[in-house]
Amino acid sequence: MNNQQKEYPGLGLVETQYVELCKDGLKLDSGVTIGPVNVAYETYGTLSEQKDNAIMVCHALSGGAHAAGWHHGDRKPGWWDIMVGPGKAYDTDRYYVICPNLLGGCYGTTGPSSIDPKTGKPYGIRFPVVTVHDMVNLQIRLLDHLGIDQVLAVAGGSIGGMVVLQWAVSYPNRVRSVIAIATTHRHSPQQIAFNEVSRQSIMADPAWKNGDYYDGEGPKLGLAVARMIGHITYLSEPGMERKFGRRLRNRERYGYNFSKEFEVETYLEHQGQSFVERFDANSLLYITKALDYFDLSNGFDSLTEAFRGCPTVFLLIAFSSDWLYPPHQMKGVAKAIRRSGGDATYYEISSDYGHDAFLLEYKTQTPLIQSFLERTYRTHSIMDEKYNA
Amino acid sequence: MNNQQKEYPGLGLVETQYVELCKDGLKLDSGVTIGPVNVAYETYGTLSEQKDNAIMVCHALSGGAHAAGWHHGDRKPGWWDIMVGPGKAYDTDRYYVICPNLLGGCYGTTGPSSIDPKTGKPYGIRFPVVTVHDMVNLQIRLLDHLGIDQVLAVAGGSIGGMVVLQWAVSYPNRVRSVIAIATTHRHSPQQIAFNEVSRQSIMADPAWKNGDYYDGEGPKLGLAVARMIGHITYLSEPGMERKFGRRLRNRERYGYNFSKEFEVETYLEHQGQSFVERFDANSLLYITKALDYFDLSNGFDSLTEAFRGCPTVFLLIAFSSDWLYPPHQMKGVAKAIRRSGGDATYYEISSDYGHDAFLLEYKTQTPLIQSFLERTYRTHSIMDEKYNA
Repeated sequence: MNNQQKEYPGLGLVETQYVELCKDGLKLDSGVTIGPVNVAYETYGTLSEQKDNAIMVCHALSGGAHAAGWHHGDRKPGWWDIMVGPGKAYDTDRYYVICPNLLGGCYGTTGPSSIDPKTGKPYGIRFPVVTVHDMVNLQIRLLDHLGIDQVLAVAGGSIGGMVVLQWAVSYPNRVRSVIAIATTHRHSPQQIAFNEVSRQSIMADPAWKNGDYYDGEGPKLGLAVARMIGHITYLSEPGMERKFGRRLRNRERYGYNFSKEFEVETYLEHQGQSFVERFDANSLLYITKALDYFDLSNGFDSLTEAFRGCPTVFLLIAFSSDWLYPPHQMKGVAKAIRRSGGDATYYEISSDYGHDAFLLEYKTQTPLIQSFLERTYRTHSIMDEKYNA
Repeated sequence: MNNQQKEYPGLGLVETQYVELCKDGLKLDSGVTIGPVNVAYETYGTLSEQKDNAIMVCHALSGGAHAAGWHHGDRKPGWWDIMVGPGKAYDTDRYYVICPNLLGGCYGTTGPSSIDPKTGKPYGIRFPVVTVHDMVNLQIRLLDHLGIDQVLAVAGGSIGGMVVLQWAVSYPNRVRSVIAIATTHRHSPQQIAFNEVSRQSIMADPAWKNGDYYDGEGPKLGLAVARMIGHITYLSEPGMERKFGRRLRNRERYGYNFSKEFEVETYLEHQGQSFVERFDANSLLYITKALDYFDLSNGFDSLTEAFRGCPTVFLLIAFSSDWLYPPHQMKGVAKAIRRSGGDATYYEISSDYGHDAFLLEYKTQTPLIQSFLERTYRTHSIMDEKYNA
């Protein structure tokens, strides 16, 4: 093991790539056309000669193209490094993994903080509202650019899970299998409500300035509160009990004042503070809005009809203590797929990590994902052989 | 029925009374002494000659002394009118009901918006931090003022439920029975977290001005966001599904913008807006902090020890879909009381109203409360007869 491998285990140093797509324009669900559109993405592993081993992984709210490996000077690896790399769930020794930043994001793909070519200034909230379907359309353009007809799998948790479900419905011929984790086919009013409060928190901050804050500090206080709300929903009640209890941070006795005394308060403060340093408030507005609009059954008589005739194979994973995307939602998706005649495997993993489990429960998820991918990949090869025979 | 009875059914017109107490000072748990302390309260029904039919009801976060009946021009009656009045759960034909505004509140009892006699200006956050125990101490002073040695019952939901549990532990000889609804003996880290985010939302609003906003508008935007967070936690997921679903407010199609489109968004906006017109942001800071400090087992080896020797009879009610104060917490209190040798009756009412159920589920609660009070009251009378014989 050389020094670099010691310092940057797993995939080692990786780099984000950038490409300009949609020079002919990308027509959005809202009717607006934008273009050209920049996409930031990373790839890990090697694309096979047959181009049949590509897996696209899709990030959640705060993620980006940097799914795995290390950037120079990183103190932490990419957001799904626990799952993506040599020998891991998404095994980069076998598969070619692609992770693009989603449309509307703030990590290199065009979004509200990008420069509007028409004005030379950041879009702000003049950026058109985007949908999960729009996000997938842009990913298809990236796939075209990479010269890949069909991916072996698309995989993602939370928002990423909605994106990959949309793939199956909109582009069933471009994807052989879908791995959707801790997600839903549409937001319940409670999920919409949490998003709306997060948006209101940002827009209530005078520093938001109707979205035109890029020459200043931006709505850091409002964004921090939004992130704190988010983090409560990412954890479970028993998980918080185990992690924090009622432990006090710096005192054995209460201070009888409004400083942060309970460990859980300090945790939330830290999460809020670190988020505002790295995330764009307008991107949070756009991405949460896309989620609230998301309804896979839109345009169909039912969710079952949305999946009708879809040849894609599904692996669906939920976590017992996830109350933001509770297991009953994921189970409902599995039922709809099966009713449509499709192939869905559903697992509920027992965990007290809450929604965060999709980022943490690698030991339980890895064998499920490895065998699912193996099955899909082998079936593919056998079919190829049949066709070639 | 005369016109006034038609216009103001139930208890008819009622009035809030005000009294100045604690001229000798009220020593708080923080060590600070305040005084005199003003208390706003209402009473309904008639105190018996034996003074043995008094019930004190305790409000939740946004309530006040006006529990039932109507103030002149009211469009809605008091916050618990559904439960307090002639023939209702707390039957004012039989019992004398007292409802004081809690210490730290903003409806007439001394709190952060009151004038500090030392400066002639509102306290703001110079008001000392208060605890649930302090709130009970002040209620005892009110009871002394009213010349009542012992109340038949103290009753309350949510925060009010914590207050009444504290009565039993701190003043077991002043209360014959406790009715605690949708509450807990101490906040879990999740409950602390929701409160902390609400506080942060207020303090992040520049209009909060470190608590000195009484000459201006105040932190209306931050307070509205705090209230919106609260309202999500007051409802249940299935209750929201039934009440709002994904229904759109004004359009059949999405508007692809950031206006409020889903009914649940408009509901939250309305709740936030109406709250800022009637509630003081600093009071929210103080009351939520009191809740986070609240731990009935403080100073005892266990919760069971806290109840040891307490002669008070308990009625504990939880609601199946209440995830803010989930039934397992209330059940834990019942178990501790029984382990201590005490008398606790626990009911879990099936309801999809979530935490709000304590304000809404009157049909299911009324018979439980009526028979519990009847039992306590009759036992009292029989004992009196025995003593007199």
